[in-house]
Amino acid sequence: MDIIAPVLTPFRGDRVDLEKFGHHASNILKKGVDALFVAGTTGLGPALSLEEKKTLLEAAAGLTKRVIMQVGSLRHEEVLELLSYSRRFDVEAVASVPPYYFPRLSERQVAKYFKNLCARSPHPVYLYNYPAAVGRDVHAQLAKQIGCISGVKDTSEELAHTLAYKRLMPAVKVYNGADNLIAPAFAAGLDGVVASAANYLPEALRAMKEAAAEGDLRKAMAVQSLLYEVLEVARPLGYLAAVYELVEAFQGYAAGEPRPPIYPLEDEERRSLRGALEGVRERLRGLI
Amino acid sequence: MDIIAPVLTPFRGDRVDLEKFGHHASNILKKGVDALFVAGTTGLGPALSLEEKKTLLEAAAGLTKRVIMQVGSLRHEEVLELLSYSRRFDVEAVASVPPYYFPRLSERQVAKYFKNLCARSPHPVYLYNYPAAVGRDVHAQLAKQIGCISGVKDTSEELAHTLAYKRLMPAVKVYNGADNLIAPAFAAGLDGVVASAANYLPEALRAMKEAAAEGDLRKAMAVQSLLYEVLEVARPLGYLAAVYELVEAFQGYAAGEPRPPIYPLEDEERRSLRGALEGVRERLRGLI
Amino acid sequence: MDIIAPVLTPFRGDRVDLEKFGHHASNILKKGVDALFVAGTTGLGPALSLEEKKTLLEAAAGLTKRVIMQVGSLRHEEVLELLSYSRRFDVEAVASVPPYYFPRLSERQVAKYFKNLCARSPHPVYLYNYPAAVGRDVHAQLAKQIGCISGVKDTSEELAHTLAYKRLMPAVKVYNGADNLIAPAFAAGLDGVVASAANYLPEALRAMKEAAAEGDLRKAMAVQSLLYEVLEVARPLGYLAAVYELVEAFQGYAAGEPRPPIYPLEDEERRSLRGALEGVRERLRGLI
Amino acid sequence: MDIIAPVLTPFRGDRVDLEKFGHHASNILKKGVDALFVAGTTGLGPALSLEEKKTLLEAAAGLTKRVIMQVGSLRHEEVLELLSYSRRFDVEAVASVPPYYFPRLSERQVAKYFKNLCARSPHPVYLYNYPAAVGRDVHAQLAKQIGCISGVKDTSEELAHTLAYKRLMPAVKVYNGADNLIAPAFAAGLDGVVASAANYLPEALRAMKEAAAEGDLRKAMAVQSLLYEVLEVARPLGYLAAVYELVEAFQGYAAGEPRPPIYPLEDEERRSLRGALEGVRERLRGLI
Repeated sequence: MDIIAPVLTPFRGDRVDLEKFGHHASNILKKGVDALFVAGTTGLGPALSLEEKKTLLEAAAGLTKRVIMQVGSLRHEEVLELLSYSRRFDVEAVASVPPYYFPRLSERQVAKYFKNLCARSPHPVYLYNYPAAVGRDVHAQLAKQIGCISGVKDTSEELAHTLAYKRLMPAVKVYNGADNLIAPAFAAGLDGVVASAANYLPEALRAMKEAAAEGDLRKAMAVQSLLYEVLEVARPLGYLAAVYELVEAFQGYAAGEPRPPIYPLEDEERRSLRGALEGVRERLRGLI
Repeated sequence: MDIIAPVLTPFRGDRVDLEKFGHHASNILKKGVDALFVAGTTGLGPALSLEEKKTLLEAAAGLTKRVIMQVGSLRHEEVLELLSYSRRFDVEAVASVPPYYFPRLSERQVAKYFKNLCARSPHPVYLYNYPAAVGRDVHAQLAKQIGCISGVKDTSEELAHTLAYKRLMPAVKVYNGADNLIAPAFAAGLDGVVASAANYLPEALRAMKEAAAEGDLRKAMAVQSLLYEVLEVARPLGYLAAVYELVEAFQGYAAGEPRPPIYPLEDEERRSLRGALEGVRERLRGLI
Repeated sequence: MDIIAPVLTPFRGDRVDLEKFGHHASNILKKGVDALFVAGTTGLGPALSLEEKKTLLEAAAGLTKRVIMQVGSLRHEEVLELLSYSRRFDVEAVASVPPYYFPRLSERQVAKYFKNLCARSPHPVYLYNYPAAVGRDVHAQLAKQIGCISGVKDTSEELAHTLAYKRLMPAVKVYNGADNLIAPAFAAGLDGVVASAANYLPEALRAMKEAAAEGDLRKAMAVQSLLYEVLEVARPLGYLAAVYELVEAFQGYAAGEPRPPIYPLEDEERRSLRGALEGVRERLRGLI
Repeated sequence: MDIIAPVLTPFRGDRVDLEKFGHHASNILKKGVDALFVAGTTGLGPALSLEEKKTLLEAAAGLTKRVIMQVGSLRHEEVLELLSYSRRFDVEAVASVPPYYFPRLSERQVAKYFKNLCARSPHPVYLYNYPAAVGRDVHAQLAKQIGCISGVKDTSEELAHTLAYKRLMPAVKVYNGADNLIAPAFAAGLDGVVASAANYLPEALRAMKEAAAEGDLRKAMAVQSLLYEVLEVARPLGYLAAVYELVEAFQGYAAGEPRPPIYPLEDEERRSLRGALEGVRERLRGLI
């Protein structure tokens, strides 16, 4: 069972801060993260330029062999160039969201997108399914029918939806991507999780993984419960921006800022978030 | 961890067939079902008359002390009379769906409905939350705020949604009601499940419960997988009607028919369902 | 172009107040309403007993020949008995919502419901489509395929959805049922509207109808705009309960109360509603 | 009342074909289109590079003063540069979709995005609201609160949703963007439409506009009905790709191809589309 971090991208004044990226990624790898998912949603992938993605890939590949590089973009040329560039690195896989934004694509068009990706990719291709962001669901039947998918990150709060991939494609790696289903995903026998919380509480994810492996579901759920409390205060503020702050709050170092159109938290939001986390931190210490 | 059956209501020519009801309920209680949920959705509760509900309550209470009687109805007088009638029986709880059909009720009106229920009920009151049928979600925060809910059946495919009740109201019994989340629900530490499949495959539910209790998640998920296959062929035919046929197919006795507006399967549908189940039955035998 | 009122059902202490019903229905018929839609959603139809529906049908039929009687219910026997009873009256049509509450009925089952209704009905059968309440959409293609539908009340905020019935079945009467699309529905060439607002502002509906007939869309939309303001303050309070209060506020007589599970507005809600209506009333007077 | 065309972007072998763009835009301007909406959804805006958008802006501005340039992008730098570049041209407005793809942005973040846009833009700023593509709804209340929006293109099939902008912000230009609400939008008194169909049937849009202006709703709806038939055959094939083919079919010249991830129709799809259009074309000729 893998803990995969959709690693955040730290910015300073509109530019990627590679030093902070390296420091942050190293820290969470040390604390229990098994692999890095680069340029995903938490990493603000769809808002990165091609050059930025290349730089992040290089940086990540320098830290671990277990890199999954998210290459999906609406700019076709950039997808192809990034695939070609990825040839230089011995990464675990490339992943892609389906074409987003555009409504009313046919299933044929979506399947064609992934088939083309497989044909061009020097690495195994993972489906990154995230209907709430993309506006379309590449469900298990469709994924199977595409025929060349080697792994799935399914960001869905319906666990049954994620389990369906494993059932239809038993040889494929299947990960759930919802922060509030980490313990259940481990308990349900998936291959692991790709969860934003791995950025700010990798220790908690490791504790859940170990508890689930030992069949101690009560403990796994107790840790998950604390994570719910974090989500409850962080989500209304804009979760993507809050993650930067959560890293600083829980890990103790600055993780940079997001970049517009993801605006950083305002001071008041920051203070209210910090205040709400006090109790969580303490109880977490008692648990793990 | 409880296996609760939302027991079906057998009809013969538009009338409840009490004999078949008794035979069926006894059978599944023997095979691992811990409690009966009477006049729920599978039991076609909202399509039953007051007299029919009384008769079913009496019959169920004669078989086990563990009866949860669903009393919700849009006809207020009938709710009150059924509550009053339930005084005669030593049941575990009464449950109610929120007012259904009518859109644009305020949360205050929904809360008032349950508070009134609690004030009149001689038994603990359970919330039966089923947004897909009711059109509104009585989520954990609202349920907590109602203040008198002793149990929850949450028919939701989002496990996180169900877990939230347990988190906010740790003393309350919380059950998930989705047939495709039985093993995950057991694994995630809920109080159990209220699952239609308990009507036709109580053995499979028992096997999942035991496997989960022993930490053997691989086995629990393998059984769940077979259940998925059943759901996949049964749902497109109209699941409520198919359940009658599934009882006959798996348990070997006739369970009567549904009643319009739930029409029984047609012959061709019946045959195609039977055909599709052949393989499932065999593999199930290998597992449990 | 017809203005049809889904006439409300006044209660006093849990019983239908027939006198208030008669007075109210007569008043709105005088003020421009062309026909009565009895036991619809605003009339709390699904919460009425069979006896109550019979009484309302008789009362309505005594006031006008233009009665559309909503007969849909989950209790099959009651549907049949009401159809049979309706034979005594020379009504325009019977209408029915599709089976509600129960998810996962197949389209075959829904079509069968309406075919059976047509076979038993002494009057033309109208489809009352209301996906937000029923949980399923009997869209134009399906309605056409049923083959015996003579009219449609489509309560949908998507005007295009309603227009599709007219396009596929040009001989069928097609009405939109959304209070916020009255002027657009008249403008778009539908056969009319079945709108709750006909209970409390029949004068406004008549003004919109006449303005639309004369091509004076600016005026029609100005009146519609005032109605939006009413909806905006009334809906958050629970619209079904608010309609009773709106009748009293705009028409000047008491219209009784709703019945649980639709609870009447509380005093504070009532006051806030009244306060918000002051300005609307005045501007309306300037317009019509 | 304006007919605005969200003008398509013709590609040849992955590059924008400016010659085809000019020829196409000129043709539809001659046939009744009042203004061009450049780099919208039909123009595949979110899949264009900054350079491509600059080129299209220049080309469009050379054809008419009535250009609305869609500048929204997840790449912040590109938004700023395009705004700055737009200073060279005397366009009617710039428009922007809200930040798309990223779920869980707070309303504050979305409002901040538009406020920043207003602060930097040399031209009036229009909101391009398209919840089905973007995943969030910048509804009338929020748009009003932003405080600097001068126009709205609302791509929604709920006409009431679009009308709300006009009601809350009477001085703002409000356009509906749904191909199946063109006649109703004209009839309902909006400022016009921004409709994909203006690419392939500008004559039909002009006919609807004129019929609505004359109060001849029957004719307007008859033309709209023919357009429905086009949509019904084109949408299942992937509407964005089909639009290219529809231009060729109805206007008689090649309009290039889309670019991956929007794949062109396959031969069989093309043939089936052409076949289905035969009847439409003939009946249209009878009408306009």
